[in-house]
Amino acid sequence: MKVPIIILIEGWSGSGKGTLINKLIQGLDPRGFQVFTTQKATEEERRHPYLWRFWCNIPEKGKIHIFDRGWYQCILKEPYKEIAAHKAQYEELLQFERNLMVDGTIIFKFFLHISKEEQKERFKHLESDEASKWRITKQDWQQNKEYEKYYNIIDHMLANTCTQDAPWNIINAENKYIGHLQILKTVVEALEANITGKQIRNQESLNNISNLISQTTKHTTQILQNMDLSLYLTENDYNRRCKELQKKLEDLQYELYKKRVPVILAFEGWDAAGKGGAIKRLTQCMDPRGYQVIPIAAPNEFERNHHYLWRFWKAFPRSGHIAIFDRTWYGRVLVERIERFCSIADWQRAYSEINQMEQYLVASDYLILKFWLHIDKDEQAKRFQARQETPEKQWKITAEDWRNREKWDDYELAVNDMLSKTSTEIAPWTVVEANSKYYARIKILETVINALETRLNH
Amino acid sequence: MKVPIIILIEGWSGSGKGTLINKLIQGLDPRGFQVFTTQKATEEERRHPYLWRFWCNIPEKGKIHIFDRGWYQCILKEPYKEIAAHKAQYEELLQFERNLMVDGTIIFKFFLHISKEEQKERFKHLESDEASKWRITKQDWQQNKEYEKYYNIIDHMLANTCTQDAPWNIINAENKYIGHLQILKTVVEALEANITGKQIRNQESLNNISNLISQTTKHTTQILQNMDLSLYLTENDYNRRCKELQKKLEDLQYELYKKRVPVILAFEGWDAAGKGGAIKRLTQCMDPRGYQVIPIAAPNEFERNHHYLWRFWKAFPRSGHIAIFDRTWYGRVLVERIERFCSIADWQRAYSEINQMEQYLVASDYLILKFWLHIDKDEQAKRFQARQETPEKQWKITAEDWRNREKWDDYELAVNDMLSKTSTEIAPWTVVEANSKYYARIKILETVINALETRLNH
Repeated sequence: MKVPIIILIEGWSGSGKGTLINKLIQGLDPRGFQVFTTQKATEEERRHPYLWRFWCNIPEKGKIHIFDRGWYQCILKEPYKEIAAHKAQYEELLQFERNLMVDGTIIFKFFLHISKEEQKERFKHLESDEASKWRITKQDWQQNKEYEKYYNIIDHMLANTCTQDAPWNIINAENKYIGHLQILKTVVEALEANITGKQIRNQESLNNISNLISQTTKHTTQILQNMDLSLYLTENDYNRRCKELQKKLEDLQYELYKKRVPVILAFEGWDAAGKGGAIKRLTQCMDPRGYQVIPIAAPNEFERNHHYLWRFWKAFPRSGHIAIFDRTWYGRVLVERIERFCSIADWQRAYSEINQMEQYLVASDYLILKFWLHIDKDEQAKRFQARQETPEKQWKITAEDWRNREKWDDYELAVNDMLSKTSTEIAPWTVVEANSKYYARIKILETVINALETRLNH
Repeated sequence: MKVPIIILIEGWSGSGKGTLINKLIQGLDPRGFQVFTTQKATEEERRHPYLWRFWCNIPEKGKIHIFDRGWYQCILKEPYKEIAAHKAQYEELLQFERNLMVDGTIIFKFFLHISKEEQKERFKHLESDEASKWRITKQDWQQNKEYEKYYNIIDHMLANTCTQDAPWNIINAENKYIGHLQILKTVVEALEANITGKQIRNQESLNNISNLISQTTKHTTQILQNMDLSLYLTENDYNRRCKELQKKLEDLQYELYKKRVPVILAFEGWDAAGKGGAIKRLTQCMDPRGYQVIPIAAPNEFERNHHYLWRFWKAFPRSGHIAIFDRTWYGRVLVERIERFCSIADWQRAYSEINQMEQYLVASDYLILKFWLHIDKDEQAKRFQARQETPEKQWKITAEDWRNREKWDDYELAVNDMLSKTSTEIAPWTVVEANSKYYARIKILETVINALETRLNH
């Protein structure tokens, strides 16, 4: 049934997570599961948003990923923080879970509980044996000493992150047989219920499609129609400005590298609107060690088997680096919407999913700029023609481009929707008048430079 | 033409590697290349063999990977080592290059040269500007101060690692325009020559196939025929021994985790010989945080587009961890040989490629054990039959298993070849008499435990 499953095992130090996980996986085929151990963040992980490492490791359809500790570590590792500070994080963690669940992932959350006395007993027992002594660290004893403090944190967390779709299962881990049985029972029963439930839901969703279609929102925004596409720049002005701006950008790139600011530049636009050329003008003077251009094509099979945001999460840059996306996650509400690669409910939900993701990224220190390169239909026709007549540009134009062109009106609707629903203050869209390539490239350079200067407090 | 290309840029500090790479990539389509910057090794990289990070990043067919510094850093970063000590490393680095080149990769190696005075000038110039001051480190000045020492190291390295197929191109980097032109010229000319050459070679290799077939070695070894398949163990003996050994293994796993020994257990064997069951008995008491079972199926398209050893390199465990391969890189000389998924020259070459790889891994601290699970044709028939008659085991038996069975004699020949050519002292094969599953599992447990105890100096 191609359901992705996450089993998260949290618990007290010494509660036997390792043993229980091993018992759990003995019954599974190695081709179908993987165990992930959450340890101290690596350098690479520290230079990405906290949830990045978990996003990178979400299961593909039909796979089980077992996490030995997971995203709740940001709470559990911080016993000295005010509970109020934790509260703000709960929502982020739950959002992560909701994102995956609405996409079909089943999430099991287990907390292995042992008493203060039992924990002490176990530490002592492990320390008494030369072979296992090294496993007990100062932090472990610290947890035992301050058991009550941790207990309060844990209790508050369990109560506040126990949702209907991903409830916490508290496991009595004082007896490993009971713990093992409890986990197996929970997983088996939930999966059985889910299989039955899914069969019922599949039926229901078929009946609901017509209903959903009628809910498609009516549009009033006309952002694209109001653009002044007659704006242009002469070649001389362009060459002069371009040189000046590129030099500026070069300096700014070093500065943001030094100050460890992560930057995402997202490019969308009509076919032949000049995304590639604009990106080239941006990167021409940059240091290749600090930027990466990420061309987004149709997802391959492995990517299609994951949450649609997964492949973008994996590509988000580390701090100090710039990632330039040539097409983006907005494909969900553009090509996927129009070609019906996803359901109506999927792309309608995507606006808020994407807004939330960008909000999280910005809160994690990212600078995000999004560009829509706008040309009119006549200009596109001219450029398509030119491409077909120039031998070394012919590879750039395919039958698909012509097919897309026929759906111009559908795209226009989708783009207007996208711009009005996802242009936020923290991650704004810049609509670029691109009938004049010179004008467009300079506007993009200026926009990027202004944003970087503001961010770097110039 | 699906040729993978590596462009390695080494050079003095301040020789302008970044600028030159950026000029180089401006002419390339972002879908076709990637830049890799070799910096201080990450924790993950330090816990793998030195060449691991480069193996993981080799290009797939048709892609260009540009390395800003690369595998020669182990020489260039060690100016205080005796030149004699470097010599031993040259061979490893050249072997890595040969491995890729014989598989069709084109490797360009550039060294950007500037004089001591020019380097000093550049450092001073960079330091004079507030914006670029931070880029010059103590190490950079150190290199300038000890320029002659570095010069000797570099000179020796360039002379001794300049091979006919992957020569060093020394670039005059005092003038960035000349440097850029030199690099472009070298790459373009070599690629043009290669394209023509390849077309000629393709023709030649067609003519050579019959020649190669006649060269296929005649076999005298009869390792499999000499096995005593009547060996067995009673259920009682098995249960008792299994428990004892698993407990022992549990302790040994912690010890090797603590002592950071990386372990590779490789399993091959006839279909239905009991690999899965044997692996399960090994892992039953292990800590899942320290081992991973890696089931090897037919390579997917992405994997097929890489060197055949690439997907295994990526999976080799970090220090302190155990990777258990259910089928292995020996597929090259078994199924790929028999099903003609690779050329005769390919699998004939594979014996020494694999031996060299294992030698390198052992030199990098790995413990490698390889198991061939041997059953006879009658026993296999019984097990196939049993699988087909047991509903919950039916998924384990496919038409392919029956087809493989028909090629039993071909496989027997290939297995005998493999065992005789790749059973080395440092990475030996253990042929396991597996008609009795109990006997086989205990023999494997004992072999693993003995090897671990020897390694851990018990």
